[in-house]
Amino acid sequence: MATALIVLAAGMGTRMKSDLPKVLHQIAQAPMLVHAMRSGASLSPDHTVVVAGHGAEAVNKAAKAYDEAAQVVLQTEQLGTAHAVAQAAPALAGYEGDAIVLYGDTPFIRPETLEKMAQARASHDVVVLGFDATDPGRYGRLVMAGDTLERIVEFKDATKAERAITFCNSGVMAAPATLLFDLIAEVDNDNASGEYYLTDIIAIARARGLSATAVACDESETMGINSRAELAQAEAAFQARARSQAMDDGVTLAAPETVHFAHDTVVGRDTVIDQNVVFGPDVTIESGAHIRAFSHLEGCHVSRGAVVGPYARLRPGTELAEHTRVGNFVEIKNAIIDEGTKVNHLSYIGDAHLGEGSNIGAGTITCNYDGVMKHRTEVGKRVFIGSNTMLVAPVTLGDESMTASGSVITSDVPEGALALARARQENKPGLARKLFEMLKSKKAKRDKGAK
Amino acid sequence: MATALIVLAAGMGTRMKSDLPKVLHQIAQAPMLVHAMRSGASLSPDHTVVVAGHGAEAVNKAAKAYDEAAQVVLQTEQLGTAHAVAQAAPALAGYEGDAIVLYGDTPFIRPETLEKMAQARASHDVVVLGFDATDPGRYGRLVMAGDTLERIVEFKDATKAERAITFCNSGVMAAPATLLFDLIAEVDNDNASGEYYLTDIIAIARARGLSATAVACDESETMGINSRAELAQAEAAFQARARSQAMDDGVTLAAPETVHFAHDTVVGRDTVIDQNVVFGPDVTIESGAHIRAFSHLEGCHVSRGAVVGPYARLRPGTELAEHTRVGNFVEIKNAIIDEGTKVNHLSYIGDAHLGEGSNIGAGTITCNYDGVMKHRTEVGKRVFIGSNTMLVAPVTLGDESMTASGSVITSDVPEGALALARARQENKPGLARKLFEMLKSKKAKRDKGAK
Amino acid sequence: MATALIVLAAGMGTRMKSDLPKVLHQIAQAPMLVHAMRSGASLSPDHTVVVAGHGAEAVNKAAKAYDEAAQVVLQTEQLGTAHAVAQAAPALAGYEGDAIVLYGDTPFIRPETLEKMAQARASHDVVVLGFDATDPGRYGRLVMAGDTLERIVEFKDATKAERAITFCNSGVMAAPATLLFDLIAEVDNDNASGEYYLTDIIAIARARGLSATAVACDESETMGINSRAELAQAEAAFQARARSQAMDDGVTLAAPETVHFAHDTVVGRDTVIDQNVVFGPDVTIESGAHIRAFSHLEGCHVSRGAVVGPYARLRPGTELAEHTRVGNFVEIKNAIIDEGTKVNHLSYIGDAHLGEGSNIGAGTITCNYDGVMKHRTEVGKRVFIGSNTMLVAPVTLGDESMTASGSVITSDVPEGALALARARQENKPGLARKLFEMLKSKKAKRDKGAK
Repeated sequence: MATALIVLAAGMGTRMKSDLPKVLHQIAQAPMLVHAMRSGASLSPDHTVVVAGHGAEAVNKAAKAYDEAAQVVLQTEQLGTAHAVAQAAPALAGYEGDAIVLYGDTPFIRPETLEKMAQARASHDVVVLGFDATDPGRYGRLVMAGDTLERIVEFKDATKAERAITFCNSGVMAAPATLLFDLIAEVDNDNASGEYYLTDIIAIARARGLSATAVACDESETMGINSRAELAQAEAAFQARARSQAMDDGVTLAAPETVHFAHDTVVGRDTVIDQNVVFGPDVTIESGAHIRAFSHLEGCHVSRGAVVGPYARLRPGTELAEHTRVGNFVEIKNAIIDEGTKVNHLSYIGDAHLGEGSNIGAGTITCNYDGVMKHRTEVGKRVFIGSNTMLVAPVTLGDESMTASGSVITSDVPEGALALARARQENKPGLARKLFEMLKSKKAKRDKGAK
Repeated sequence: MATALIVLAAGMGTRMKSDLPKVLHQIAQAPMLVHAMRSGASLSPDHTVVVAGHGAEAVNKAAKAYDEAAQVVLQTEQLGTAHAVAQAAPALAGYEGDAIVLYGDTPFIRPETLEKMAQARASHDVVVLGFDATDPGRYGRLVMAGDTLERIVEFKDATKAERAITFCNSGVMAAPATLLFDLIAEVDNDNASGEYYLTDIIAIARARGLSATAVACDESETMGINSRAELAQAEAAFQARARSQAMDDGVTLAAPETVHFAHDTVVGRDTVIDQNVVFGPDVTIESGAHIRAFSHLEGCHVSRGAVVGPYARLRPGTELAEHTRVGNFVEIKNAIIDEGTKVNHLSYIGDAHLGEGSNIGAGTITCNYDGVMKHRTEVGKRVFIGSNTMLVAPVTLGDESMTASGSVITSDVPEGALALARARQENKPGLARKLFEMLKSKKAKRDKGAK
Repeated sequence: MATALIVLAAGMGTRMKSDLPKVLHQIAQAPMLVHAMRSGASLSPDHTVVVAGHGAEAVNKAAKAYDEAAQVVLQTEQLGTAHAVAQAAPALAGYEGDAIVLYGDTPFIRPETLEKMAQARASHDVVVLGFDATDPGRYGRLVMAGDTLERIVEFKDATKAERAITFCNSGVMAAPATLLFDLIAEVDNDNASGEYYLTDIIAIARARGLSATAVACDESETMGINSRAELAQAEAAFQARARSQAMDDGVTLAAPETVHFAHDTVVGRDTVIDQNVVFGPDVTIESGAHIRAFSHLEGCHVSRGAVVGPYARLRPGTELAEHTRVGNFVEIKNAIIDEGTKVNHLSYIGDAHLGEGSNIGAGTITCNYDGVMKHRTEVGKRVFIGSNTMLVAPVTLGDESMTASGSVITSDVPEGALALARARQENKPGLARKLFEMLKSKKAKRDKGAK
């Protein structure tokens, strides 16, 4: 069935105690709004309408960064969920498909669950998403008669028998878009908080003789986030699933609880991930790689047989070919490293291409920034870069060239050539001892003066 | 009410299996003794008397480091808690206020709890701190009649009915100082272990017709520490509270279980702390900063909008102004870094001041130590330090100056000047290939010789 | 009693989804096979026979790496456990002692448990290892009459009464070697899966009038590993025990859950291990050392009073003498560091010997690799290495010598001498400002051209 998404994302989230709009707080390095949008995207919606309010500009930016086609509409006053959905009406004017209402602070609804809702719409006018609550507390209860949803009862209005019901309202709903807005038009704000509640459309629909039903999802899917503590719980829930999935897929995690995935991390079979590894967004690791302890990866691609870390930092634009080796205290940014090349110690490689079979000495730095612009470094095949070489970009080193340790390379090095840029060593006999004596007597004098 | 603290800290802590006195083992980077003293300090006591025994010298030093005015008295033999308290008598001779007895290995009593005890003293002669035990086990039981504490019964002497009591003795007590010492003088050591028990003063007081009561605290406050495993549990309890408090205060912790606070860490609202961050003592982070993964901070101040890490180490005396940036594999010590200045890669900055808007290249080192003394480096505003510059202190670089990559700067650089200290590059055509051949044949010969 | 081990290690481990044979997946940095072999080794067996199948070559290599004397026999088809044991018969031909059957994927059987089995053999022909299962599920049940094992009933064949038994079969068995093979010869594969089950020998033995018994171990010992999730659980179980043991032994672990031990890590009393420390194999830490946060140690020895980290990486062959100091972003490999010497910042020390009382400046690198061979660096006593010194090996620095910061040292430095290899500093007045202007106008032009 053709569907449009309406994602409510206008709330302030007072309990977050944050200047950032609630739905932009991140889980697994994506705003929770994006998790909700991605979940809905599984239905291939015709339209996605995000209802923004607090921090609307930032919400607009985040929504469009994820889906350029998303429309962001403004709810200038927060008058309740029905009022929020109503703001989407102009954007969906004339749309004849279904509308499904999602929440930007409820990031974990599964695609399978939305699919079930879409299917239930075939036989009912309105579909509500419910869940069997371990502790129903003050949730609204779904009163069912067979597969018909009779009504939604708010906790405070519920009879004792109704309070015993554990099937609760998640707030997620699906209905034909035109019907949805039509029902909402009848909702009033005649209640203690003076808000317009989306929940009320069930009673209105039933009064009109329309049919309603509820489909069930797992309680964990409806987890809503209202505080930083709940945000941390959501993150933990995400990570637990991601770690478990990775292991099921044939990835070895020596200490799963210390590996932190991003929302989109891809890791191949027989890759080993050691302790304390953090993934930022947009990382792909092929099969049979080894990510050692204390590594931090973002926006990179690691090929089969590559070994990364310990203490390696791969930043966006890093491409490691097969059997490359990036070692400790090494940072790589926007660089392509070809097969078998090694950068093992204390180096910074940025805006560079390193040819295959090269060996980059400890302490090598690509000086890619001149204070105003960035420049590129090109290193050929089977090149030997001596320790502590400065490669002042733009610069090119030919195949099988070499640099002497401690050289500052400012001009190109031809194929097969050795480049040197350093002073000759001089030994000054006895001078070390003299210097030490001098410094010690200077210090003694200073210390005396200090009294 | 005017109060003096008596903190018992003489025990050996055999089960710690340590040469360090038990009360000096640390929780959240402060000795547990200091946690107990700080808790008591909330009462603004007139005197603080620490009773030391094992490792008294070290205990004395730690106590005075926290509170210069603290008096440390010696209990040469460990003859029981009453005997320990008695050692404080000379130090409080003539004192007419209350005395409250705390324990150096019971670090988590809350100020609110001590306040309640002080208030209860208004209506009773002696006040005992009790707690409702989940598993009362072999704790002494507090037998209450209304709000009167009838007696404390040791487990081994308790009737079946008394053993059913779950309100247990924490050992913490408050009484007028003179009364306390007076009661203690009557305590005998007529028991299996031949020790003088502080607990016995309740029976003595009641026999004299004095009134006693008990106030209740949470069981978690009375957690005592006798082994390294219990020390680790206490640390975990501290961290759980600190993480939860930080989130309640509006700090984002992506993975709270991987962030380790010190006892005095202060973090502002909307600051984000990523995975695996360790705080040493004396750290303040303002609002809206970002501490990235694998960072280690001690004795530093991080201003609004600063970004630290990943893999940044800030050591004591580090001051980061607003919007500064300290990146990976960078160590900062005793240095002030002004607004907007960046130290992004593989650097050591010690004993320095970096002016605003400067950019410090990768691999920069302030050579602050000459083998005998430390010296300072002064870098002006909007300075560009080329990669791998050695700043040999003492040295000053003027505003808008620049150093060429790989330079060793031993003398001052005037404003606007470029400093260079490096050799000219020479390319030796074909020499890399020849060298490789030579080395390979040398190796072949050596390998052959090794057979 | 003289004993031979038969370790079954032929299974594919389909659920691991790995190209690596299941028994070679690691727990605490040793293959699980090695854990099983080490457990059996506590009996000082006359023979160790490993039955390999999938990945036999790799299994052979791992088995011999742990115990050169181990014999590895091949089970070309996986026809069941009895069939697997039968493959060991030729290797044990004529052996008159006992045989005990262990499993390469059951790594946690304790030596004490095997000792109990050996003792039970004194009074019974066949001994089975059982455990009291919390959730017996589909395990085979051990039907006992007094201390006689009547029979092993598979779950699917068990009566309701038998299913109520919680004493279950671990599969581990002991019997005289000749009897074992004799009984196995009678096992048939007349069952649903067409396999030969070792379990069947109990019925055969009992039918012959032989005696059988079962001894009990803790359920945790019989934990078998069939998936990466179970591997992670086994690792967690190992780590929990190792952390707890370390604390019992008087080691302080600030955050035990963040310290990862290898199977053979040794740590002395009163050593403090901070957060996030990873141990590879073959590490010994003496008493009273301090391993700071984010450190990674393999194949090294750390002496009393040494301080390591934060962010230190010690690689195989590292020997730290007393009161040495290895600091942040420092890598040490195959190097001996004598008493009191310090390598505090951003250094790589490989294939070297550093004499006592020396100070190695920040950014020091031993250039130990020339592209073909590795060479050694010798540093004398009380040497001062200036920051960013390159020590191009092979090279020797005499006692009390010194290098100037930024020097590339290619030839030996005599005792007491100062070695310099650097260019003189030149200041070009105003040039920094000119360069900035030039670069900015270049950039402006480029940006314009890009439009």
